[in-house]
Formats: sequence, C-alpha cells, structure tokens
Amino acid sequence: MTRASIDLTPALDQIASEMDRQFDLLLRVPDDSRRTLFQAMRHAAIGGGKRMRPLLTVATAEMFNVDRQRALRVATAVECIHVYSLIHDDLPAMDDDDLRRGKPTVHKAFDEATAVLAGDALHALAFEILADEETSPDPFVRSELVFELARASGPSGMAGGQMMDLAAAHDSFDLSAVTRLQQLKTGALIGVSVESGAILGRIPPEGRMGLRGYARDIGLAFQIADDILDVEGDADVAGKALNKDMAAGKATFLSLLGLDRAREQAGLLVDQAVRHLRGFGHEADLLRAVARYVVERDR
Amino acid sequence: MTRASIDLTPALDQIASEMDRQFDLLLRVPDDSRRTLFQAMRHAAIGGGKRMRPLLTVATAEMFNVDRQRALRVATAVECIHVYSLIHDDLPAMDDDDLRRGKPTVHKAFDEATAVLAGDALHALAFEILADEETSPDPFVRSELVFELARASGPSGMAGGQMMDLAAAHDSFDLSAVTRLQQLKTGALIGVSVESGAILGRIPPEGRMGLRGYARDIGLAFQIADDILDVEGDADVAGKALNKDMAAGKATFLSLLGLDRAREQAGLLVDQAVRHLRGFGHEADLLRAVARYVVERDR
Repeated sequence: MTRASIDLTPALDQIASEMDRQFDLLLRVPDDSRRTLFQAMRHAAIGGGKRMRPLLTVATAEMFNVDRQRALRVATAVECIHVYSLIHDDLPAMDDDDLRRGKPTVHKAFDEATAVLAGDALHALAFEILADEETSPDPFVRSELVFELARASGPSGMAGGQMMDLAAAHDSFDLSAVTRLQQLKTGALIGVSVESGAILGRIPPEGRMGLRGYARDIGLAFQIADDILDVEGDADVAGKALNKDMAAGKATFLSLLGLDRAREQAGLLVDQAVRHLRGFGHEADLLRAVARYVVERDR
Repeated sequence: MTRASIDLTPALDQIASEMDRQFDLLLRVPDDSRRTLFQAMRHAAIGGGKRMRPLLTVATAEMFNVDRQRALRVATAVECIHVYSLIHDDLPAMDDDDLRRGKPTVHKAFDEATAVLAGDALHALAFEILADEETSPDPFVRSELVFELARASGPSGMAGGQMMDLAAAHDSFDLSAVTRLQQLKTGALIGVSVESGAILGRIPPEGRMGLRGYARDIGLAFQIADDILDVEGDADVAGKALNKDMAAGKATFLSLLGLDRAREQAGLLVDQAVRHLRGFGHEADLLRAVARYVVERDR
C-alpha cells in the first residue's frame, strides 16, 4: 500500500463511535430542571458530523505516542467548541438554519433560549475538560491546551471570523479578506485540532512548525471544498441547507476564483500541506490521508 | 475604626476604574471587519456595574499578598464571564431586557447576532487570560483557575442555573429548588470570585474552606437582596427593568418567604458569612465589609 492510498474509512468510523461514546458519558442527563439543557447538548453533540477535528487531534497525538484516552479527551474538548459554534451560528439571528447533520437544528428541536445555553454550556465544558488532571498530569500541558483553544474560539479566532462573515453579506470582500476571514472562522480551530495533539506529546513550539503549516493549508483547502460543496453538493448528503452564501451575495473562494481555479487551488494546498509533513515518516500517513479527504469528501 | 464600620466606597471606586482600564486595554478595536464585535464587547464591559465579583477576587488575593496586577487579571477574567452571561441572559429569547447598567442592552445597541458573538468572545477571552503566563508563572495555578471558572460557567454552574431559571417560569419551585437554582446561577461565580484569589495565593483546597463557606453565604444573601430590590428598588438606580420575576410568576426567595423573613434570612446569612472568616484578622476586613454591602446596597 502506498502512502497515497491509505483508506480513511476505518479511522473515520472509529473516531465517530469514540466521540459519540465520550459525549454520551460526559452528558448524562441529570434528574433536575436542567434536563432539557443536557438533552439539547446531546442532540447537537451525539450522532452525525464528520468528526474531522477530533480525527486530526488523535492522529497527531498518535504520532507522538500519546495515550489514546488522553487524546480522546482533548479531541472531545475541540469538538465541544466546534459543536457550540454550529449551534450558535445556526440561530435565527445568525445564519438561520433549520437543518444540521441531517437533524433539526437545536433551536428548532428545542427553542432559541435552550440553543443559546446549550452552546454556552459546551463552550465552558471544553475548558473544564482540558484543565482536568485526567487530560494530562502535566499542568503546563493543560494550561497550554487551554490557551490555544481559547484563542481559537475567541475574538481573534472563531467568534471574530463569524463576525467578519456576517459583515461579508454587506461589505465587499476580496480574496485576501476572505482568506483572513476563513483563517479565523475555520482555520484557527483546525489549527488547534492538529497542534493540540503535539502539545499532548510535549513537542515544543519550534517542533510544531511543520504541523502548523499543514493545518493552515488543509484549513484553507477545507473551506474551498466547502464553498464548492455549497454549490455542487447534495443537501441530503450534507445534512444541511446548501447554496446559502451565493444566495446571500457573499464573496467566497468560489465566487472570487471560479470553479476551475478554486478546484486547482484546493489541490495545490493539499500538496503543500503534505509537503509540510516531509520531516515525518509513516507515522504521519493518517494526516496525509486526511489532507486528501478534505477536498475529496462529498459532505 | 471598628471592623463593622469600614467604608467600602474607596475600594468600590478603585476597582471600578481599574476594571474599566483593564477592559480598555484588552479590547482595543481592530481596524478590520471585527470592529463592531469589539465595540459591542466594550459597550457591555466598560462603564457601569458594581464590579462586586472583581472586588471579591482582589480583596481575597490581597489577604495572601498576591501581586495586584495578577489579581486584576483574574478579576478581569471573572468579570468577562459575568458580562458575557448578562449579554446572553438579556437576549430576546431569554429574559428580553432592553436596559442594563443604565444603558441599552447589547442586542438593542447593536443587534442580536452581535450580542450572541460578543458574549461568546468574552467567554473565550476569560480562559485565554487565565491560561496566559502573565496571570501566574505557575502552570498549576493557571490550570486550577481555568478548571474552577469553567465549572462555574458550564452546565453545573451558570448555564445550568439559567436553564433552571427558564424552567421556573412554568414549573413550581419550592425553597430548596430556588436555593439550588441560585447556587448554580449566581452562587458558583461568586464562589470562584473569592476562591480564585486564594488559588493565586497558592492556598491549598483545605485552607480555603472558610472562604468557600463565606462565598456560599454571601452568594445566597446577594440573591435574596436582589429579589427584594427587584420589588422595592428604584429602576433608575438599578439601571435595569425591575419587577420582572414577580410579573413572570417565578418563585423567588421573596415570594416564598415574604419580605420580613427574606430580610431576616439575608441578615442571618451575612452574620454566618462573617463567622466563616473568624480564622482571619484585619486582612479580611474588606471581605467582611463586602458581606454587609451585599444586603445594604441600593442597586
């Protein structure tokens, strides 16, 4: 089997069932008036989703021989942030989506107040998980994980990127503005998904440069592929409404580059991402396969 | 001057101006399409508010000779969480308030999407501040601060309490249910406001028992006083709409106990809070004064 032909399906299936199990254990419904909150968190966090970010975390952690249970805890924290952001982004005041991962969005299945709180609760839970001694016996590792994830979630990460995205509906964004927007909105969390595996493996910042470059490139490739799927994809497979950006008149990689150049650019980014891994051997094959999956996926 | 007669005004004025300065430095408006996000965060975080939680943090930290700059950073993180919760609680889908701290709420001054994101961004920022080496050179201290604040903010803290509060409008809550609700909704964050000062001072958990008891008692006294102010207070002084719980038919300490017993109970809790500090000398006078302020304040 050559490096290029590794089959990602077993790894994707495994992480999907591991994430469902983690959230099932973490979100036991209490017998008090918070039960709806926990049901809403479970609705959003369990079942569905590609689990690409958790896969990146465990795949990177595995390269540095990190215990899988610890890696799964960090992957769960990263996915908490991703799921919280989906719940809030889907709200009527934001992107106003009814369908997510093939199910009604949280504010549709429950109500808006519950959706706001379920997102908030998952946001806090991510940091509680990371700061817990079970995640790492080394407080420096815990603290560094929290710092990186908090940055990726805050005003200079996802929240900032989502604000830019709302502005994109009325401001005119060029390619560099869209790139910056996406680096914040989706790139920062993909970056920390990869980097957190290396932090768990106690790799110092200077040893993480290649992984950072890899994450930056697949983050952009992921977004270009998303823009293409938004126009060319199948809503049933995607499990959410498509064609939204185009309808809102938002500048995207696709609207700015056109289909052919967008596809070409995504391919170039994947090649470049893989080149960033040249310092690693077979232990990075899973990351190489994820890079290809990012642009070849159908949802 | 006896212990009972310490004047809290200078300490309240000082922490108010220090908090405004911290947020002013932290939330510099960037020259990109995130500017509205930062303006909304500044609108909510700067000016107004009693700053009681930050005062508790710096007052406790001072008892253990913690550097004031470090204490202020932790106080800012705690206040980030408080402000974020106010922004989200005020949303139309939640308590639907137009006025907060004498100013229009964030979704009124800006819009709902910006309010959701400004809250989210402040939520993340709190953990970024705590996990930063500038807050403490000791990673164990940083990690412990994050863990305690995340718990206070999440499903077993504020978010859980707010969910119970939404349920209180249609379920019938007795005194023990209201007590539990408020321990989560307001008590948990008041608890961490106090305890974080001791964590910064490297006081081990067994040395924090008195402070925990103090925080639990003033937390409940604070909420009883809030329920009384909601009915008897002046909306102009409070800077927000009053009489909301009564109008919504929610069970509160006041509706369950009546005015006289509620006042008496608040007084007993303050006495009990002060007794929890008996192991400390004059260095705890500020905390003793805060305990009295909690029930004597007019907003």
